[in-house]
Amino acid sequence: MSTFDMNSLGQIIGELSQYDPYPIHDGNGFSAVTRRATVRLIERLECLLFPMQHAWSDAVEGSRRNARLELLGVVTWDLAHQIHRASPHSCDGGGTECPRLSEAFETSLGFVADLPAILQGLTLDLDAAFNGDPAARDRSEIISSYPGLYAIMVYRLAHRLWEYDVPLLPRLMTEIAHSATGIDIHPGARIGSSFFIDHGTGVVIGETTEVGKEVTLYQGVTLGALNFPRDEEGRIIRGQKRHPTIGDRVVVYSGATILGGNTVVGEGSVIGGNVWLTESVPAYSRVIAQPKIQLKSGTP
Amino acid sequence: MSTFDMNSLGQIIGELSQYDPYPIHDGNGFSAVTRRATVRLIERLECLLFPMQHAWSDAVEGSRRNARLELLGVVTWDLAHQIHRASPHSCDGGGTECPRLSEAFETSLGFVADLPAILQGLTLDLDAAFNGDPAARDRSEIISSYPGLYAIMVYRLAHRLWEYDVPLLPRLMTEIAHSATGIDIHPGARIGSSFFIDHGTGVVIGETTEVGKEVTLYQGVTLGALNFPRDEEGRIIRGQKRHPTIGDRVVVYSGATILGGNTVVGEGSVIGGNVWLTESVPAYSRVIAQPKIQLKSGTP
Amino acid sequence: MSTFDMNSLGQIIGELSQYDPYPIHDGNGFSAVTRRATVRLIERLECLLFPMQHAWSDAVEGSRRNARLELLGVVTWDLAHQIHRASPHSCDGGGTECPRLSEAFETSLGFVADLPAILQGLTLDLDAAFNGDPAARDRSEIISSYPGLYAIMVYRLAHRLWEYDVPLLPRLMTEIAHSATGIDIHPGARIGSSFFIDHGTGVVIGETTEVGKEVTLYQGVTLGALNFPRDEEGRIIRGQKRHPTIGDRVVVYSGATILGGNTVVGEGSVIGGNVWLTESVPAYSRVIAQPKIQLKSGTP
Amino acid sequence: MSTFDMNSLGQIIGELSQYDPYPIHDGNGFSAVTRRATVRLIERLECLLFPMQHAWSDAVEGSRRNARLELLGVVTWDLAHQIHRASPHSCDGGGTECPRLSEAFETSLGFVADLPAILQGLTLDLDAAFNGDPAARDRSEIISSYPGLYAIMVYRLAHRLWEYDVPLLPRLMTEIAHSATGIDIHPGARIGSSFFIDHGTGVVIGETTEVGKEVTLYQGVTLGALNFPRDEEGRIIRGQKRHPTIGDRVVVYSGATILGGNTVVGEGSVIGGNVWLTESVPAYSRVIAQPKIQLKSGTP
Amino acid sequence: MSTFDMNSLGQIIGELSQYDPYPIHDGNGFSAVTRRATVRLIERLECLLFPMQHAWSDAVEGSRRNARLELLGVVTWDLAHQIHRASPHSCDGGGTECPRLSEAFETSLGFVADLPAILQGLTLDLDAAFNGDPAARDRSEIISSYPGLYAIMVYRLAHRLWEYDVPLLPRLMTEIAHSATGIDIHPGARIGSSFFIDHGTGVVIGETTEVGKEVTLYQGVTLGALNFPRDEEGRIIRGQKRHPTIGDRVVVYSGATILGGNTVVGEGSVIGGNVWLTESVPAYSRVIAQPKIQLKSGTP
Amino acid sequence: MSTFDMNSLGQIIGELSQYDPYPIHDGNGFSAVTRRATVRLIERLECLLFPMQHAWSDAVEGSRRNARLELLGVVTWDLAHQIHRASPHSCDGGGTECPRLSEAFETSLGFVADLPAILQGLTLDLDAAFNGDPAARDRSEIISSYPGLYAIMVYRLAHRLWEYDVPLLPRLMTEIAHSATGIDIHPGARIGSSFFIDHGTGVVIGETTEVGKEVTLYQGVTLGALNFPRDEEGRIIRGQKRHPTIGDRVVVYSGATILGGNTVVGEGSVIGGNVWLTESVPAYSRVIAQPKIQLKSGTP
Repeated sequence: MSTFDMNSLGQIIGELSQYDPYPIHDGNGFSAVTRRATVRLIERLECLLFPMQHAWSDAVEGSRRNARLELLGVVTWDLAHQIHRASPHSCDGGGTECPRLSEAFETSLGFVADLPAILQGLTLDLDAAFNGDPAARDRSEIISSYPGLYAIMVYRLAHRLWEYDVPLLPRLMTEIAHSATGIDIHPGARIGSSFFIDHGTGVVIGETTEVGKEVTLYQGVTLGALNFPRDEEGRIIRGQKRHPTIGDRVVVYSGATILGGNTVVGEGSVIGGNVWLTESVPAYSRVIAQPKIQLKSGTP
Repeated sequence: MSTFDMNSLGQIIGELSQYDPYPIHDGNGFSAVTRRATVRLIERLECLLFPMQHAWSDAVEGSRRNARLELLGVVTWDLAHQIHRASPHSCDGGGTECPRLSEAFETSLGFVADLPAILQGLTLDLDAAFNGDPAARDRSEIISSYPGLYAIMVYRLAHRLWEYDVPLLPRLMTEIAHSATGIDIHPGARIGSSFFIDHGTGVVIGETTEVGKEVTLYQGVTLGALNFPRDEEGRIIRGQKRHPTIGDRVVVYSGATILGGNTVVGEGSVIGGNVWLTESVPAYSRVIAQPKIQLKSGTP
Repeated sequence: MSTFDMNSLGQIIGELSQYDPYPIHDGNGFSAVTRRATVRLIERLECLLFPMQHAWSDAVEGSRRNARLELLGVVTWDLAHQIHRASPHSCDGGGTECPRLSEAFETSLGFVADLPAILQGLTLDLDAAFNGDPAARDRSEIISSYPGLYAIMVYRLAHRLWEYDVPLLPRLMTEIAHSATGIDIHPGARIGSSFFIDHGTGVVIGETTEVGKEVTLYQGVTLGALNFPRDEEGRIIRGQKRHPTIGDRVVVYSGATILGGNTVVGEGSVIGGNVWLTESVPAYSRVIAQPKIQLKSGTP
Repeated sequence: MSTFDMNSLGQIIGELSQYDPYPIHDGNGFSAVTRRATVRLIERLECLLFPMQHAWSDAVEGSRRNARLELLGVVTWDLAHQIHRASPHSCDGGGTECPRLSEAFETSLGFVADLPAILQGLTLDLDAAFNGDPAARDRSEIISSYPGLYAIMVYRLAHRLWEYDVPLLPRLMTEIAHSATGIDIHPGARIGSSFFIDHGTGVVIGETTEVGKEVTLYQGVTLGALNFPRDEEGRIIRGQKRHPTIGDRVVVYSGATILGGNTVVGEGSVIGGNVWLTESVPAYSRVIAQPKIQLKSGTP
Repeated sequence: MSTFDMNSLGQIIGELSQYDPYPIHDGNGFSAVTRRATVRLIERLECLLFPMQHAWSDAVEGSRRNARLELLGVVTWDLAHQIHRASPHSCDGGGTECPRLSEAFETSLGFVADLPAILQGLTLDLDAAFNGDPAARDRSEIISSYPGLYAIMVYRLAHRLWEYDVPLLPRLMTEIAHSATGIDIHPGARIGSSFFIDHGTGVVIGETTEVGKEVTLYQGVTLGALNFPRDEEGRIIRGQKRHPTIGDRVVVYSGATILGGNTVVGEGSVIGGNVWLTESVPAYSRVIAQPKIQLKSGTP
Repeated sequence: MSTFDMNSLGQIIGELSQYDPYPIHDGNGFSAVTRRATVRLIERLECLLFPMQHAWSDAVEGSRRNARLELLGVVTWDLAHQIHRASPHSCDGGGTECPRLSEAFETSLGFVADLPAILQGLTLDLDAAFNGDPAARDRSEIISSYPGLYAIMVYRLAHRLWEYDVPLLPRLMTEIAHSATGIDIHPGARIGSSFFIDHGTGVVIGETTEVGKEVTLYQGVTLGALNFPRDEEGRIIRGQKRHPTIGDRVVVYSGATILGGNTVVGEGSVIGGNVWLTESVPAYSRVIAQPKIQLKSGTP
């Protein structure tokens, strides 16, 4: 094609349409949840939970309460529609009946009523970060600057939606946090209180992972699957437990990899950096990788 | 300096100018390609390829076609100018004649005509992700939430521009995807169909890497250079093959590192997590790291 | 809660307020530094240092000088207020007297006068990247597309503020660069000239790290703490040297981990990929991990 | 002042504070309704009433219904808070108890339930414009391009809020329309159905004006007050009927001025251009100004 | 309605849909031209014609030419689609075949080729303003600050589109200028060169007006219709000449009203302020209103 | 032209360049003041003067003071650069030396020190509006909703800059207010305290007008020039007194026109609606237009 003519462009459009992964829906309508809308939703939820980091730091008591109340209503309604928009995705080609908008609104109302409990939990995560990192000057530094706390906040919000069986949206939320922090937590994972991730880039926590209380992870830790079961026709089987179980008060240092649905790390254990672990260890274990290193001193 | 006076500020500006890496150009004009413009270009291309994730999900058939056509023209023109802006960068201090705007427009027209083929390829990548990850509920979740697919999409677009010898722009495109996903693919790499990267943070794929069909990579995989040849005066030699060749249907697990331009991983091989590989392995190899770990069970 | 009534929403707000990590301040006023404002500050500083990557590439000499001067004044004033806003954070519950706005302005004036020297240093970092990476076509590609240079730029700016004892803001700046690049450099670290980080995702450089001149790091390198000293009551002790010291001209390959405040890597040493190092090595050492790998060739 | 020092600036701020028309409120909080928020509210209401002029023209039936429903909820909540914010303004220095947020929400719910009736009325205004202007090609041209219809739409919305005794907000709404169109309708005016204003710049309709059905006004028409009654101490008396009453099917041509609370223009009358009318006229009157003009023909 | 329940909101939406002036279109698609898009189009055209008032004032010669070229292509494509979107409006319920996108593109290409001639004409209008107003310091003040020149620029652009038989868009363009300036020029009017409108608020120039060369108007001047012919069934007849004809070098002072399709103001005439003229006057007439005024001097 | 080819577009650009009213400046640089920047400057100044109408209504005392101080510095610096940018306009083709940036900064510092006095004056204008309009409920309604007060505020700010001999910027400021309100006040006019304009659309106040204290104008009032003196070659003479002088406590009703540099309206006079006045009247005059109107009552 060497000229900018309508026919050539029209032909390109026609060809593009052939490869659309989703056909255009019928007259009953369909509105996809977008990443942009999900980013906005997370921002609003963060603003509700940690207003100090946002525009309200100056407000007098009453104004702040009003502003928060305004935002809470906006979030409730926004979330209801994002849930509604997300729903068709889980109904692709299936007979499952999709939730209707009024059900989505009920879910949203339930979710916002859970926000105080979620914030209470995040306060414990915040304390865990403060107690676990000597570089932290005060809690406000952690709220504003620690990617671990941000990723955990988004996870806890998304996991609550996951428990409400909201499709797609929780996954998109944690992926947005993954993009911002390098910490990839699947919303289906179950994680206990007082959780701390330091630095965090490269952390992966799979869908069926279970994590106890007061656990600490460093950057590059994978809590992953060892292999994926497939059915007789070679199709991957979805939904089975395939990620490890981490006990209370476990610490996992940077670059460690713990794999497998049957792998249990007993409470109080310490998993050293770069360890590759695919079997269970009892409580209070200390697991250390012993890489042989070759050292040649020399002059230039 | 203790007062906000013009002379002091003017002096700072004068000093800053001394260290400008690029002098101000002469009257023939020069407009640099910016990151902001490149981000916008990627968004527009993504919107053309996967409109469902954007504002058009509601549209009726005809409107959607028109909107896509509008966008296609905008992209063609925008891309032509970004190519034009990028060109002087490759002409620094050289006698090489820079492509003129009309040539940039020709390139852009050629590129957009390739978009359907690129989309067709991405559909195969999408299938590979769906078949390779049990956590994926449906394809729309992958399009919206999988950083691997996003990074591959940007790579495939950038690589096509690389093949047209467009300077700078392809590199800036994949770096933008790197920033968003932690997956760093050089646009010069050659990657076959049905490529899947799961989680992806920390993946590095170097400029002269060759990857076959149906390959899967996990987070933290490096396909890199072992060392850099330098000329007699110690200057680095650019452009030589220095990254590995990965055969069809190879799987590389998290944290593995494969280095060197002569390193070939034979087809169907599996490279385990944390493996450090600097030599070739034959087809259907299974390479597993065996880190010795020390386990001390104990009571608290 | 099943209806959208004011009482229920008001109750949620009341519960949220209970868990606010920070109480509302009294009538003396308090304005928190926000991430958004800090992102804008970094953009402005980058625009001052590397105007070519921004809107001024077209400008004639005089206009460019004026535009830069305009921006310099904006930055000076903006920074003064961000410093002022950040200050209360370091005064939480303490008797330390917070810097007042006029002091913040003095600091800001001092900082902008340092910008030419910072740019001069970045020019050396830029040269190091060009000389260290065969994939780099020219310096403008590095300025626009290399996450390592961006992270180092933000670090050098933040570190200068750290030296002025500005609280919070330096930490928030490097965390913003961490989010964009996956490179996590604490602003308190001390890093010499001609520093190069390639690819960079997963790099962690701790608060008390010291890095010499002409050092190169690859992706996934950790310069971290081995353990944290605690006082008799189990509280973490802050501020002590706990990260390593890296000599001049050291190269550290991808995935290597160097830990501990007493660990010194002698000048000219090379630390290989995936090495786990917790003890000092003399000058000109070459340290190589020797992971035993198991290779099974086979037919499908 | 010749230097940019903090003390001088601080002094200016101190002096500005002396002349603040409103003091800073106490801890009970106060959030003013802003013009920006009101502009947004009008845009949303217009989008609900005339979606064709906005982004939804492409939508399939179901999606459009959903999008409108999303917007309706947003409007309801937004309006509730704007009403709440506006309320303190009417309570200045008074013992009158301001409406609380829950009452504002009730008002908002009532208002949005009135929207279909308001739209029904606007359809009649639209017909009046189409039937009254030979330049109109079709109704969509009138919706998109006629300032008269826009001003009437905003008036009808604001007047309904006026009837709910909402302070400030209705006035701010019609002033925003005044700024956009040059048509200044006080929200307290009472205007019948099928109202048409052509061109409209300079039209003024005062607070206590009454306008019948099927009335047409041209640009520059004033329906104003003749004089303002004052009390014994010379203070203006507010709220009394002081603007005219216009009967059904009256036409008032450009530049005509009709003044006074006792002035009644009988039904079916025609008031000619530039007429200055301060007394009542019976039904079916034709009132024509007869300006004496002097005509001198001549050669140049 | 006293609770925020889905059923009530859904009912409101249902009722709103009943009064939609336009039904939802069928699957062939329809995208309305919006005011927002038209504002943007005007801004782009203004930026092409008077770049000095925009961001390009700093640019060197070559960069400025490139930037203008970029914008020219964007305008051409944007305008093609706005023309395409506008077209269905004129086809409502009719058998007339609407122009297709390729025809819209042809029109757009023709229009942009006319831009230099339009700019040449505007230069004459600019000279007329400079020569006609002693308050003007220089031409750049007129370009940036004179509403008359802006309104004339938009008119001349819109009128050219009107000559190409583009529906709706020209009308929307001049209404946007009306909103910004209070000057209401119908795009169908025919206006000669070197036209000057001073102050301008309240000026109305009707669809079938003809204006000669070197004419000057002041604020509040109406060139309008005396009455509208209707057919036997009382329906307004559209398209007939019903606005006046103004000869070369005529000056019309503020507030004058000239009405009627048969009214001709001969060349070189001067129409005084507030004159109401419904009959023709010969060349070189001076028409002056002689309002009798009553003057009562007095002491307070 | 029927195809979208580079040559045709390039030719259009070349033709456009021929008619550029201003040539491209030489290497000494030139940055034009833009309308967008001026709009922003007015917003910032309004925010300083009337913060209640903006985002700070919620702030506690100390935060509000800080926020205002931040903004004051931004305004000072912004204004200095706008003054600098505006200056070349007044130097067109002349040997007059343009003010340099440091002088512009001095002017800006002087101007912001005048802001408290300007606000004090605006408080009197506010009182005049409250006392003069029975429709005003309270002062905050006037600040937020009265176009007259807004136009006067912008005039008083612009007039102060005019007194500092700042070119272009004052004119652009009052034109922006003209666009928003329909009230066209030249910044060179001299207007006394306690000035009130009601409704305001169509008001014109010329450059050399003088207005006393406690004057009230209604919509459509012109204080203009009777004719423009020209020199022997027919060129308009700029700068002479050509607009009227209005005494203290004068009221001018809607549509009245007062023209001529020698026309003086004595103190305490009342000028009735639609009066056309070109000669002086003594103090305490009442001037009333007596248009003869023809009234035909009748039955339909």
